[in-house]
Amino acid sequence: MYENALELLKEKRYPELRTMLMEMEAPDIALLLEEAEMEVVPRIYRILPKELAAETFTEMDADMQEMLIRSFSDNELGEVLEEMFLDDMADLVDEMPSSLVTRILRVTSSDNRKIINELLNYPEDSAGSIMTIEFVDFKKHITVKEAFDILRKTAPDKETVYTCYVTDARRHLIGVVTVKDLLLAPYDEIIENIMDTGVIYNYTHDDKEEVARDIEKYGFLAMPIVDNETRLVGIVTVDDAIEVISEEAEEDFAIMAAVTPSEETYFKTSIWGHSKNRILWLLILMLSSTFTGMIITNYETAMNALLVSFIPMIMGTGGNSGSQSSAMIVRGLATEEIKLKDFMRVFIKELCIGVFVGVVLAVVNALRTWLMYELMYKNDPVYAEYNIWMVSLTVGLTIIGVVVLAKILGAVLPMLAKRLNLDPAIMASPLITTIVDTCAVLLYFNIAIAVLSI
Amino acid sequence: MYENALELLKEKRYPELRTMLMEMEAPDIALLLEEAEMEVVPRIYRILPKELAAETFTEMDADMQEMLIRSFSDNELGEVLEEMFLDDMADLVDEMPSSLVTRILRVTSSDNRKIINELLNYPEDSAGSIMTIEFVDFKKHITVKEAFDILRKTAPDKETVYTCYVTDARRHLIGVVTVKDLLLAPYDEIIENIMDTGVIYNYTHDDKEEVARDIEKYGFLAMPIVDNETRLVGIVTVDDAIEVISEEAEEDFAIMAAVTPSEETYFKTSIWGHSKNRILWLLILMLSSTFTGMIITNYETAMNALLVSFIPMIMGTGGNSGSQSSAMIVRGLATEEIKLKDFMRVFIKELCIGVFVGVVLAVVNALRTWLMYELMYKNDPVYAEYNIWMVSLTVGLTIIGVVVLAKILGAVLPMLAKRLNLDPAIMASPLITTIVDTCAVLLYFNIAIAVLSI
Repeated sequence: MYENALELLKEKRYPELRTMLMEMEAPDIALLLEEAEMEVVPRIYRILPKELAAETFTEMDADMQEMLIRSFSDNELGEVLEEMFLDDMADLVDEMPSSLVTRILRVTSSDNRKIINELLNYPEDSAGSIMTIEFVDFKKHITVKEAFDILRKTAPDKETVYTCYVTDARRHLIGVVTVKDLLLAPYDEIIENIMDTGVIYNYTHDDKEEVARDIEKYGFLAMPIVDNETRLVGIVTVDDAIEVISEEAEEDFAIMAAVTPSEETYFKTSIWGHSKNRILWLLILMLSSTFTGMIITNYETAMNALLVSFIPMIMGTGGNSGSQSSAMIVRGLATEEIKLKDFMRVFIKELCIGVFVGVVLAVVNALRTWLMYELMYKNDPVYAEYNIWMVSLTVGLTIIGVVVLAKILGAVLPMLAKRLNLDPAIMASPLITTIVDTCAVLLYFNIAIAVLSI
Repeated sequence: MYENALELLKEKRYPELRTMLMEMEAPDIALLLEEAEMEVVPRIYRILPKELAAETFTEMDADMQEMLIRSFSDNELGEVLEEMFLDDMADLVDEMPSSLVTRILRVTSSDNRKIINELLNYPEDSAGSIMTIEFVDFKKHITVKEAFDILRKTAPDKETVYTCYVTDARRHLIGVVTVKDLLLAPYDEIIENIMDTGVIYNYTHDDKEEVARDIEKYGFLAMPIVDNETRLVGIVTVDDAIEVISEEAEEDFAIMAAVTPSEETYFKTSIWGHSKNRILWLLILMLSSTFTGMIITNYETAMNALLVSFIPMIMGTGGNSGSQSSAMIVRGLATEEIKLKDFMRVFIKELCIGVFVGVVLAVVNALRTWLMYELMYKNDPVYAEYNIWMVSLTVGLTIIGVVVLAKILGAVLPMLAKRLNLDPAIMASPLITTIVDTCAVLLYFNIAIAVLSI
């Protein structure tokens, strides 16, 4: 359907396009409009029925929303805003330039203006900042029939109606009842008798990722959000939870690859934007790897060609071992499987893994060195001076030491970052690799001096 | 609540624990049982009401499920299975050892046995393998009142009732109607008049990640799944979609950190399991970095101490640049923002970013080299022989070349992997780093020979 609509758009067959758009979902229409030339967007937008138009508007990116608002009369703007949910309006106000914000707030009722201001005041990344206030609440003494009447009357304005909340006179959350419960109960049953009182909720100041993880864990369609006095003030719906989980994963991917995370998608980010996001970390890592270089220069006179040839392998193995551990720990912390109190468990586990993996790698390396020496270099004068087994021992001990160190740093540093309220992901791959590189080279040279007495 | 229950469990105050468990959600009870001693688990499990017990059973990990089934009489097992959804039963059959599977299937009705077998026959990672067959469907000529009657009668057995599907006599999917639509319509309205006919659906053979991404995109509570003749055969619910998105992200994190992905969590995996998941990639990367070492040895006689000191920085910068690009592209491909047809767009974008970033890094490096030389080494006899500007030029040209190469490889290789139907994530960080390392060292030495005429 999307492909057909795109064709109609390109061939400017607007009447047929209109018929097709009526059957399409808002996210697809928003995508389609991004492919259209800027001039025709307001024209196509205007042929959509009111409700679908508002839904499509919510799905658009900020640039297109801004362009459309500039093309709207105050009347049209008012109509779109009226159909929008208040949390989407708060997002819109947050993203538009101030001149448009003034216009938007002017055509908004003063009640809604007040609510939008409140929503915008919740800290970034808090549950309050992503919640919606359009939920259904009942008093406990009403009947199921009355509940259905309320639902029928208010449903068009609510983001989700399938989970309803029960509050007392002072708006404290005291129970939850689903539409499924209502369907299964007799009409004259009192809500109090069928509501579930063990309500799970989050606070407005909770981290939005925590809320999303709880929605995932309990399989909820919505999570009630309460203020400090456990008064129900909003809900976070499951579609927002998916968005949070996806965004946080993308953010961790970026940070773990030494890219400053951005909310924009790959193609929406300019070459300049991408460069800016990547260059800072590259500079930091470049300057820090200069130390490794200086250490090598310092020791170089004592080293010989064979020993130097192992340096890339030792650095690489250390870096990769560290990345492995840090990635596991960073994600474990993100999904809350690993908690700070598990510190010693993780430490011991990584230590054991490090020793085991290190020994295996050291043995494989010794075999590889011996094989290559036997097959290729036995009569090469450059290698004749070395005791190949002593070299393997040196390299093997270094590998074990480096892998153990890398595993421990990879586990400890993200947990330390979390303890200091930093994002654990910054301690992932690139930074760990750079730290381990420097340690690896130092360790290698000192073991070489000790074992080979050079 | 969870903490209080844990305390009651540890103090073996079972009657009080029981009261508390009744108020708790199944995922929390399953977590709690993992903290309990193995012997008391069946005892605590038995004090749960039937429905809650079945829900809790579904949330448990396979080990505990197995242990419980062994402690069940056939009668008890039958009761648990009766309360379970068929897709959860199929998962259970998939995970239990064959002796228990025989027992499970024996106490299952032959109708359900047939369905479970069908579900198990869908390919791994397909929509069919995660769908549930307990959905609500209507015929188009019934009234809203009749629809509510059907809902009331069948709701207890359905996983989700809020999105209902309309099918024709041959089970073709022809429309969709939500409970919200039903609530807003008059009782005597015919379903055909209120149903939405532009139904979005997936096929049983579609990748489960595609289904999850569509559920995310459209904000659905469930996605209808059809067979090759567009007959409705099941639905995928939003909670399963979240699980798929989370799992796929964790899998990509593991692969990108050179860890063989596993479905088990960090603590559930033994030290031996972790080592096994990590050692394969370390071995591959270790052996491949041996090439880099051999190249360095080959050229070492021509190089001098100052030039060698830049090697870790050049290798590190190349590796990090490549990781950045590959991470962006791998995630772009995973979330379907980047498609294979965008190949040239991505190529040109990364090329430009590479040139820009490379030049900036080269300039910073030249400044750094000059500063260190002026401040620290000016009178050091080791450095007296070098023309510091020619060395900076050599290193700078290498950095630009390596960064451009790394950016291009980081973009091209994941797309190539996708083209070959491999997982793009295997082309991320560690493999890119190793490939870039080798190229970087080769490039560096050849530029040095050309520029410095050594």
